[in-house]
Amino acid sequence: MPRYKLTIEYDGSPFVGWQRQTNGLAVQQVLEVAVEALCGQSATVHGAGRTDAGVHALGQVAHIDLPAPRRVDVVRDAINAHLRPHPVSVLACEAVADDFDARFSAIARHYLYVIVNRRSPPAVERGRVWHVARALDAGAMHDAAQCLLGNHDFTTFRASECQARSPVKTLDRLDVVRNGDRIELRVSALSFLHNQVRSMAGSLEHVGSGRWTIADLRHALVAKDRKACGVVAPAHGLYLHHVDY
Amino acid sequence: MPRYKLTIEYDGSPFVGWQRQTNGLAVQQVLEVAVEALCGQSATVHGAGRTDAGVHALGQVAHIDLPAPRRVDVVRDAINAHLRPHPVSVLACEAVADDFDARFSAIARHYLYVIVNRRSPPAVERGRVWHVARALDAGAMHDAAQCLLGNHDFTTFRASECQARSPVKTLDRLDVVRNGDRIELRVSALSFLHNQVRSMAGSLEHVGSGRWTIADLRHALVAKDRKACGVVAPAHGLYLHHVDY
Repeated sequence: MPRYKLTIEYDGSPFVGWQRQTNGLAVQQVLEVAVEALCGQSATVHGAGRTDAGVHALGQVAHIDLPAPRRVDVVRDAINAHLRPHPVSVLACEAVADDFDARFSAIARHYLYVIVNRRSPPAVERGRVWHVARALDAGAMHDAAQCLLGNHDFTTFRASECQARSPVKTLDRLDVVRNGDRIELRVSALSFLHNQVRSMAGSLEHVGSGRWTIADLRHALVAKDRKACGVVAPAHGLYLHHVDY
Repeated sequence: MPRYKLTIEYDGSPFVGWQRQTNGLAVQQVLEVAVEALCGQSATVHGAGRTDAGVHALGQVAHIDLPAPRRVDVVRDAINAHLRPHPVSVLACEAVADDFDARFSAIARHYLYVIVNRRSPPAVERGRVWHVARALDAGAMHDAAQCLLGNHDFTTFRASECQARSPVKTLDRLDVVRNGDRIELRVSALSFLHNQVRSMAGSLEHVGSGRWTIADLRHALVAKDRKACGVVAPAHGLYLHHVDY
């Protein structure tokens, strides 16, 4: 069966997350319904990573197997037609080898976390950014973030329901950049623990507001204790930005 | 009565427009309700310009008169508290002289029109951009747009229900810039006719897609005839960006 790689954008607001659940509509589910409408038989959409309820994607990746070869632009446009009215869009479709796997072939995952840092709440971007009213020092957040880079036991920044076998991960990038009222965190690794980016973002907010020093963040990391984590930043500020293969 | 200038952001999606109407909720109305809750008496919010149903604002300006002086940050925060859950946010509040008028003191209005130009529909920005699937030549659009600059009779680009006394306006800026899939139109003038920006954006889309030449756009302008206009671009791609005083 010919295999296709899909690059997918979605607004996570109306979904219970990427993965099928019993309590509501999942992104994977609306994609599978669309692929089934295209190929006339049941289909599985295998994603590069599970995003939580409310988390957005600008470049989620998935693979699908179709019963017969189709032109890639036809696959993209047909899935998009069947996705309506859901806020999910296939940006690109490529034919890939049979051994391509959206999850296991990935060599890096890149997330973006967006904070709007001002007194007034966001209006146009509401539900797509984290509003933090108290002034944050983005430079201090960036400096502190660098102590999280490299290979660590990230138990402190891991959801209790995380299913990963090991809490040890290698963080390759965590940049914090301010542009006016907007603070963007760019975070890269081969893979992440459940809630890791949001847990790190929430802890860095403590550094930015002055509640924590850099030493406090380092202590939190080495504590390897979920209770040492700062607040978990809200899902709606988080974007799965792109995945490298 | 002390007068205050408000700078306001809103997502136009749920509103019938800036101005109070009988057929639904207006931005002006939710602001007036919030100001009344703050000052305990009826209030009028005077805007710099009326935006249509679905049009957004990043920097609408309005003035209000309060029965007694208040700290500007208290005014801003109190109005924002009373605006919940509407997607309207007061970004700034300044004390101004009695003769400041949001509408009549303005010396320039700046609009932004956003097109997403790609095959796949937008997901995260749905309802906040115009999706155009056919390829557009933004350079040709920019070149053509320059023939609209200056003092002209803009009858071609004017809604039939426009209430302006004269169709003659002076257009100061109409830049078209592509950044990846995104095409932004930046449009400035002292004032605009009803639907003028959307009418010009829709006509420039004809130029970008190759349906119209630059000469066709010039002919449309000099025709001074509403029927010579291209399509009126949708409201949800338009933002009142800021107002100069």
